[in-house]
Amino acid sequence: MKIYGVIMAGGGGTRFWPLSRQERPKQLLNLSGKEVMVNETIDRLARTANKDDIFIVTNKTQAAAMKEVTRGRIQENHILAEPSARNTAACIGYAAMEILKKYGDGIMVITPSDAFIKNVEEFTRVLSVAVKEAENSDKLVTVGITPTFPSTGYGYIKYDVKDAGDAKKVEEFKEKPDLATAKEYVASGSYAWNSGMFIWKASVILKNFERFLPEIYADIVKIGNAMQKPEEQDVINEVYPQIKSISIDYGIMEQSEDVMVVPGEFGWNDVGSFDMLKVMHEEDADGNVVVGDCITIDTTNSVVYSSKKLVTTLGLDNVVVVETADSIMVCSKDRVQDVKKIVDQLKADNRKEYL
Amino acid sequence: MKIYGVIMAGGGGTRFWPLSRQERPKQLLNLSGKEVMVNETIDRLARTANKDDIFIVTNKTQAAAMKEVTRGRIQENHILAEPSARNTAACIGYAAMEILKKYGDGIMVITPSDAFIKNVEEFTRVLSVAVKEAENSDKLVTVGITPTFPSTGYGYIKYDVKDAGDAKKVEEFKEKPDLATAKEYVASGSYAWNSGMFIWKASVILKNFERFLPEIYADIVKIGNAMQKPEEQDVINEVYPQIKSISIDYGIMEQSEDVMVVPGEFGWNDVGSFDMLKVMHEEDADGNVVVGDCITIDTTNSVVYSSKKLVTTLGLDNVVVVETADSIMVCSKDRVQDVKKIVDQLKADNRKEYL
Repeated sequence: MKIYGVIMAGGGGTRFWPLSRQERPKQLLNLSGKEVMVNETIDRLARTANKDDIFIVTNKTQAAAMKEVTRGRIQENHILAEPSARNTAACIGYAAMEILKKYGDGIMVITPSDAFIKNVEEFTRVLSVAVKEAENSDKLVTVGITPTFPSTGYGYIKYDVKDAGDAKKVEEFKEKPDLATAKEYVASGSYAWNSGMFIWKASVILKNFERFLPEIYADIVKIGNAMQKPEEQDVINEVYPQIKSISIDYGIMEQSEDVMVVPGEFGWNDVGSFDMLKVMHEEDADGNVVVGDCITIDTTNSVVYSSKKLVTTLGLDNVVVVETADSIMVCSKDRVQDVKKIVDQLKADNRKEYL
Repeated sequence: MKIYGVIMAGGGGTRFWPLSRQERPKQLLNLSGKEVMVNETIDRLARTANKDDIFIVTNKTQAAAMKEVTRGRIQENHILAEPSARNTAACIGYAAMEILKKYGDGIMVITPSDAFIKNVEEFTRVLSVAVKEAENSDKLVTVGITPTFPSTGYGYIKYDVKDAGDAKKVEEFKEKPDLATAKEYVASGSYAWNSGMFIWKASVILKNFERFLPEIYADIVKIGNAMQKPEEQDVINEVYPQIKSISIDYGIMEQSEDVMVVPGEFGWNDVGSFDMLKVMHEEDADGNVVVGDCITIDTTNSVVYSSKKLVTTLGLDNVVVVETADSIMVCSKDRVQDVKKIVDQLKADNRKEYL
């Protein structure tokens, strides 16, 4: 059966400010020093699906930058621009309908655009297991990450460890836990992190929309009926913003009894803030990640990122310094999750040029 | 008697890097947010001497920038450019000869170009006392700063507290002391900080050169003999670089028995590094000095200086952040004295554009 790649790339994300902006979010950044994240995601998916069968769902604001960045890698008309962000259920329903109507049924391999994966070989193997499962069973398949520490920052998937197959029956989705609970999860050996990657037939997920999210399904059908007709874009513009905003996890995965998980270990990281750059870059002998033109003296455990100007540090520990074309951000590494506070201040000051 | 102002402005100074550079040292920086330091020094001296009687001794590298910055404030031909830096004795001897030969004898009021003085009224009053003393007595007069804490960063002047005059007889010059000694000095009440400000007649200091520094005196006389002749500049260029390099303190002040000090308290600060910006700017409620376009969130006891770009900080304590047109420096405030290490690294890397 044909395999389609679907990359969800609508996220904004302020945690990488000042690198990330409204029109240049995380997935359009080159954080690895090699390629922008969405292109790394495309190249990774291209081991599972043909490049010509890879789609990106993004939003109006980012669509132009997305087309420019991915030019030559995927087909321009495979970049779907949501008129407004309506969460993952709408995004996936729209992509499923687009594929089914215009290209025919097939396996959708859906991934976020901004995760970092170290071991691409193993990742591809895990996907192939998931694809086989989705093809043979009409089930909803997800990839779970075997936890390497008791993270309180990810959701968890409890699965049946006695299931003999490579894909395991999912018993329950769990919200981000507290530390004690996370430790129990990890110790039990029957939990995986929720990666937000989904593998299923386009026809199967649409049937699940019909059953669990009938309102959204009706809206998706309206859009589907207009596809390849002159009114297609008008209908999308009219219907899409009114679609109920709900995540695919809440809306379908947690409702269905037919969910399988393929647990995997391939150096996955949901790159969310500057301290994660450590995963993508070699640390120096002092535990620093240094990117660009920098001089670091007596500096330890820090992230020093220069886009253009010379950045120098002296006598720092545990600090993040980021220099971009128009601004500099200096932050305690313990506070990187709060960079949005700076963005909030810029919004309050109406300094749109920095958003 | 005519009063001449003489500003010694030859210093390089790397402790303000990246703000200060070889061609734009501390005295050419606007650290107060109002005026560059040398102009603040001129304006302050202009309460004691006529602007037309103020001289600046600088070096070849800085002369062009110095002329540009001071244009309209002092006469361009009053900016004396040393072919090479030969320490304060040569600088003062040259200025004394220039004044005596070309303008006639008078009181020289000699000050560094880069000190910060808070209470200009009181400073002017102290200078007037020193000028009167120099005029009446043919002594070497210096201004001493009444110490406000046991500093180990300044030299000290021991004086005769029983001397009834406003100017006190100097007993001894002391090197920078250790902390215990500094505490004794301060407790005794008979020590002042050495400010590097000198007041005396041009003719008197030249007599002291003749007595204590005869070699330098001979060189200065050679230059003096060529003054107002076509060969003047050639002689300066030939003789000056060979003048013995010694400070006026070692060479004359510590040798002479005819030295008086006028102790004063006028909020003096020998602005030497970024933490000193606190003296020149209002601190915010969190103890920060913030200059330029900055957003500081949960930031305390820090210096945040933007020349151009937006600088944002989050969760920092005791850090100095300085942004200039071509570079950014981030440094623990406890390490500001070591900023020269960055400059040394730049020299080692032969990155002249940053020096």
